[in-house]
Amino acid sequence: MRSRSGKKRQPPTPAGKTGDRRPAPSGPRPPQGGYFLWGRHAVLAALANPERRIASLYASGDAVSELGHAITALPPARQSDLPPVTDSDRRRLDAIGGSTIEKIVHQGMVAAVWPLEAPALDDLLAAHPDHTDEKPLRLICLDQLSDPRNVGAIMRSALALGATAIITTHRHAPEESGALARAAAGALERLPMVRVVNLARAIEALQDAGIVVAGLAAEGQDNVDMLADEQRLAIVMGAEGSGLRHNTRRHCDRLVRIDISEDSESLNVSIAAAIALYASRRANS
Amino acid sequence: MRSRSGKKRQPPTPAGKTGDRRPAPSGPRPPQGGYFLWGRHAVLAALANPERRIASLYASGDAVSELGHAITALPPARQSDLPPVTDSDRRRLDAIGGSTIEKIVHQGMVAAVWPLEAPALDDLLAAHPDHTDEKPLRLICLDQLSDPRNVGAIMRSALALGATAIITTHRHAPEESGALARAAAGALERLPMVRVVNLARAIEALQDAGIVVAGLAAEGQDNVDMLADEQRLAIVMGAEGSGLRHNTRRHCDRLVRIDISEDSESLNVSIAAAIALYASRRANS
Repeated sequence: MRSRSGKKRQPPTPAGKTGDRRPAPSGPRPPQGGYFLWGRHAVLAALANPERRIASLYASGDAVSELGHAITALPPARQSDLPPVTDSDRRRLDAIGGSTIEKIVHQGMVAAVWPLEAPALDDLLAAHPDHTDEKPLRLICLDQLSDPRNVGAIMRSALALGATAIITTHRHAPEESGALARAAAGALERLPMVRVVNLARAIEALQDAGIVVAGLAAEGQDNVDMLADEQRLAIVMGAEGSGLRHNTRRHCDRLVRIDISEDSESLNVSIAAAIALYASRRANS
Repeated sequence: MRSRSGKKRQPPTPAGKTGDRRPAPSGPRPPQGGYFLWGRHAVLAALANPERRIASLYASGDAVSELGHAITALPPARQSDLPPVTDSDRRRLDAIGGSTIEKIVHQGMVAAVWPLEAPALDDLLAAHPDHTDEKPLRLICLDQLSDPRNVGAIMRSALALGATAIITTHRHAPEESGALARAAAGALERLPMVRVVNLARAIEALQDAGIVVAGLAAEGQDNVDMLADEQRLAIVMGAEGSGLRHNTRRHCDRLVRIDISEDSESLNVSIAAAIALYASRRANS
C-alpha cells in the first residue's frame, strides 16, 4: 500500500501557486512545471495510474458524480493521494484551452497534473532481456516528431497493438501535454515513454540488446510485412514531411516501406506507425 | 479543353457576397454555401482538381510565389477557371479559423471554395461492374462518424491504400470543410465521396452488386485478416464510442474485429479503418 508521505509524491512547488503559463483569464491555472489533462479517457486513466501526481481536479455537470464514482472505486491509498474535486462552471473549464493548439473538448473533466517520470532506456532493456521474452518485443522510436497529437495517437495504437514502450528524444519532441494525452486516450498512463539524449546512440543500445531496428521510409527496400519475422524489433518513425534524419537512417539495420497508391503522396505518420506494428505482429499473433 | 462559360462552373451566388458563416472580423469571408480550404496540400490539390470551383485564393509570404508557380503549371483551361491570388497579411489568414474546431495552420495558403458535387451510388457501381474489375474493389462506408478530422484522415488512408470511394450519409456526417480537407491532405479532391440517404439501403445495393459488406466491431467473429480473400469488399466503420448502429450491423454480411491488447480500450477509428484496408489487400497485393 502506498502512502502520501514520501518525498516522491510531493509537488515541486505548492499546488495552486501561479506557474509561468498563462491560461485564459477566467480559467484555472496549471501548477508550476505541470499542465492540464482534459477529457474523460485522459482524466480517468490518470486517476488510475498510481505514478501520476495530480494537483487539482475539476468537473462540471454530470461529470462531477462520474468522477466521484471513479475515485471511490480506486484503492484507498490512491484515493488519499488525490485532491478534492472542484465543482466548476463548464465555461470556466472551456477557458483552460487558451494556449493549446486545438479548442479543448473536456467532456466536463479536467485535471492539473505533473509530468510522469520517464523510465531510463537501460531499465527498459534490463526488464526485457533476450532469453526470457515470451512474446515478440515491439518498440517504437520517434525521430523528432513534433505534433503532440501524432505522438499521442501513436501511443494509443502502440498500446493497443502490443508495443512495450515508445522511445523519443528529450529535445525536438513534444513534452507531455493535454493535447498529447487526449490523442493518447489513456495510453500515456500505461505505455512507458523513454526519453533519450541522442536517438542514434539509443539505436546502438537497442542493437547491442539483440533488437533489430527498422526505419520506415518511402524508399525502403523491404516491404513492411517482412518485419513479422523478427522476435525483437524496434520501428523508427520519422517526422511528417522531412522523414527520418540522415544519421538515424544510417543507424537502422534496414529500411522498410508501406506500399501506397501512385496518386497518394503519403500516409499520416500515426497511421503508418499503426500499420507497421500491425504488419509486424501477424506471423507471431 | 474546358472553358469557364458553362452553367456548371458558375457559383450559386456572386463571389464575395456575405454568407451566413461569421468568421473573425478581420479575416476574409467564404462565399455563400462555400467554405475555406487551408494548408499547402489541401489548396494545391484543389487547384489541380478541375471539378473544384474556387471563389478566391489568398497567399502570404513565400507561399505567394509557390502558389503562382503551381497555377502556371496547370492546363490553360484550368488556369482560366481560377481567380487571381490575393497577396494577404499572414494575420489576416490566421483570422479565418475563428469558427473551426482547431486553430488553423494554413502554411500561407487559403482558398475559398464551393463543395464538390457528390457522385451517385448507382454511377459508382456502374463504373465498377463485377466482370471487368481487374484489381480488388475496396469501399469504405461511414456510419455516422461525426468528427471531420477522422473522416478526412480516413479519406487520406483510403486513397493511399487503394480504396475506390467513401460512402457516407447526407445527415449525421460532416460536410466538406477546411478541417476535413486538411486531414485528408489532398485526398478530398481525388477520392469520390458518395452521399446516401439511408446507409442500410446502400448496403443492400452493394450486396446486389456482388460486394461483400463487412462491419468492423470489437465483438466481430472473424479476424480482419480474413477480408483479404474478398475480391469485392466494402468495410463499414462505426462512430467512435457508439460503434455501428444496430440496423447497420444487421445488414452487414459479417462482422470482423482487430485484436487489441487487454489493457487498451480501442483504436482510433481512422487507425482501425487503415488497418482493415491494409489487412484486406494483403493476399491480393
